[in-house]
Amino acid sequence: MSITRPHGFRAIGLDAGIKPAAAPDLALVVNDGPRDTAAAVFTANRVQAAPVLWSREAVADGRARAVVLNSGGANACTGPDGFADTHRTAEHLAGLLDVSAQDVLVCSTGLIGERLPMDPLLAGVTEATQQLTAGGEADAAAARAIMTTDSVAKTAEATTPSGATVGGIAKGAGMLAPQLATMLVVLTTDADVDAATADAALRAATATTFDRVDSDACMSTNDTVILLASGASGIAPGLEELTEAVRTVSADLARQLVADAEGASHDVHVVVRSASTEDAALAVAREIARSNLVKAAIFGNDPNWGRIVAAAGCVPESVAPFAVDDLSVHVNGVQVCRSGGAHRDRSEVDMTPRETRIEVDLGAGSASGDIWTNDLTHEYVEENSAYSS
Amino acid sequence: MSITRPHGFRAIGLDAGIKPAAAPDLALVVNDGPRDTAAAVFTANRVQAAPVLWSREAVADGRARAVVLNSGGANACTGPDGFADTHRTAEHLAGLLDVSAQDVLVCSTGLIGERLPMDPLLAGVTEATQQLTAGGEADAAAARAIMTTDSVAKTAEATTPSGATVGGIAKGAGMLAPQLATMLVVLTTDADVDAATADAALRAATATTFDRVDSDACMSTNDTVILLASGASGIAPGLEELTEAVRTVSADLARQLVADAEGASHDVHVVVRSASTEDAALAVAREIARSNLVKAAIFGNDPNWGRIVAAAGCVPESVAPFAVDDLSVHVNGVQVCRSGGAHRDRSEVDMTPRETRIEVDLGAGSASGDIWTNDLTHEYVEENSAYSS
Repeated sequence: MSITRPHGFRAIGLDAGIKPAAAPDLALVVNDGPRDTAAAVFTANRVQAAPVLWSREAVADGRARAVVLNSGGANACTGPDGFADTHRTAEHLAGLLDVSAQDVLVCSTGLIGERLPMDPLLAGVTEATQQLTAGGEADAAAARAIMTTDSVAKTAEATTPSGATVGGIAKGAGMLAPQLATMLVVLTTDADVDAATADAALRAATATTFDRVDSDACMSTNDTVILLASGASGIAPGLEELTEAVRTVSADLARQLVADAEGASHDVHVVVRSASTEDAALAVAREIARSNLVKAAIFGNDPNWGRIVAAAGCVPESVAPFAVDDLSVHVNGVQVCRSGGAHRDRSEVDMTPRETRIEVDLGAGSASGDIWTNDLTHEYVEENSAYSS
Repeated sequence: MSITRPHGFRAIGLDAGIKPAAAPDLALVVNDGPRDTAAAVFTANRVQAAPVLWSREAVADGRARAVVLNSGGANACTGPDGFADTHRTAEHLAGLLDVSAQDVLVCSTGLIGERLPMDPLLAGVTEATQQLTAGGEADAAAARAIMTTDSVAKTAEATTPSGATVGGIAKGAGMLAPQLATMLVVLTTDADVDAATADAALRAATATTFDRVDSDACMSTNDTVILLASGASGIAPGLEELTEAVRTVSADLARQLVADAEGASHDVHVVVRSASTEDAALAVAREIARSNLVKAAIFGNDPNWGRIVAAAGCVPESVAPFAVDDLSVHVNGVQVCRSGGAHRDRSEVDMTPRETRIEVDLGAGSASGDIWTNDLTHEYVEENSAYSS
């Protein structure tokens, strides 16, 4: 189970005929309360899909009763007509649930620039509301319905020490999908918390989990992470306790996203230590994680520390103060670079595991930060060129 | 001819045995005067190869008599010993030419993190000084000797209206070479100009040429562009006139670098118009040029405007103010996006030419800027993974 493991939730997923092929493409998650607490974070891209524009407004009051999600179309760059489609979807579900349209959040994923097929979508919403239920099958159906090029459905759950539960589903194949918008996540909890607590917990949890996955430096138009709290457990964990459970579920789902990144042959964990600040560490880690030369070398099982050091050197000193002569680099535990120069031979590094660990020590302080990425492979190019579509 | 087309220069290139395989790997360019004016620009990477550290100091007085360049090793991340190697190379050539070591600039390109084989290198310098000459063969030999994975030697020349000439050689396969440091350029002119004029002309010319080539967003540890002026023509063009000729030669060489980018199947010209400032236009152009999703789509002959718009949306509003609803995108002359949404069908775009032209109109002002890049291909991955080495 996942999103209906916490009390107070029902869900479902089905094939509404939005995707050209026969495949699940519509999911509902409904919060039956007693609370209708909701929080959400969205893509920082200035180009925002219609469902992002809608949901951002709808969740501003910290309340939501339901989320409707579709794959098969991102509804991005579709103008006022696309926004009207999202609005109509929210109103349709709201009518069926007898709630306000403002309490319905919408998520879409798929091709940018094309309108959604509204007739099958709305008919699917109607059908879905009749199938809403709790349990493992409903959770799995919802997780499957939001998949695009994901190869497996992604679910996770955790329990707080005080006994409240958190569940989640996610889609996103590491931002690697051809022409597809990226990451959609729905988290649920039966904790009895207000909107401010839910929002703080969600932001703290995503900052160190989903925000640290950087598969190919491309930011989608549709990224959305939603947390719904029903209060049905009657348990009211403190902010820190809730944050830890939300973080556990988020970290689990984020790691699943990296592991399912299409075309990837390595999951790459870049850890930067001894930085002056956490932001400095993250800036260096992100620059390394985004270097095509580093990523292609890892694909070739080459622990190329020269490219890692060169990537670190592209970060301005004002952002991350460090001396090049102090740089140390371990790849999979072998210190291939010390004091900015060659150290142990690269042939000592075993690059065959799926997970590659790059550890960079800046010698400039005591802060650290990490980013997850993937290698750059032939399959990435294939997936993202038109040959695959 | 190229670098010895301007009066007052001799050059040569030969096989000194620095590269493991038999291939030219050492070049000299000597300025016989009467002037010894010199200017140079270097990589902005904080990790700088020994020859960059040396040459930056050596050219600070605006004077240089010679440049020695080697392929087969970058001499980067080699510590004090590597710096001593560069120093020794400069002193060796200075002794043979009876000039100060401070008037010898050094450039290296090749693997990061390994020492240069100094015995063959210094013997090669000695031999090269005995072969120095002017003419097409010497120019071609010098251009060949700095090649790494370049498939063709790159040379260019131009003449100012007043009759001074400018010549140049360049290496660099679009920063795509496996484990290789990037772009080395030597420009020569017989114009009678002082160091301040040469410096101003070089910086203005590189800002709109070499600085606008961004093959894969990776910045090398060795990039160097040098301008030497002999004054041998006796012609003293004004700054603007000299700048134009240096820019013509630089643009010619920069375009040759893009055309020879290894693994590329398209040269991509990203032009951003109607921006609030030139910096805003360049920021948007660079973000698009660096998007792996855009670059992979072009490889697949897919004029994917959604990815172009999404990349533009990643630039912060503080850097490039524009309204998403005002965005217009032409690909190879076809307006596939208007007012931020779909316009003409992407099937109308002919993506078969080697050159792909992306034109983005921000509707936010009257400034413009452009960046050249390449597509992301299987060959890029292959070249930059260890499989090729």
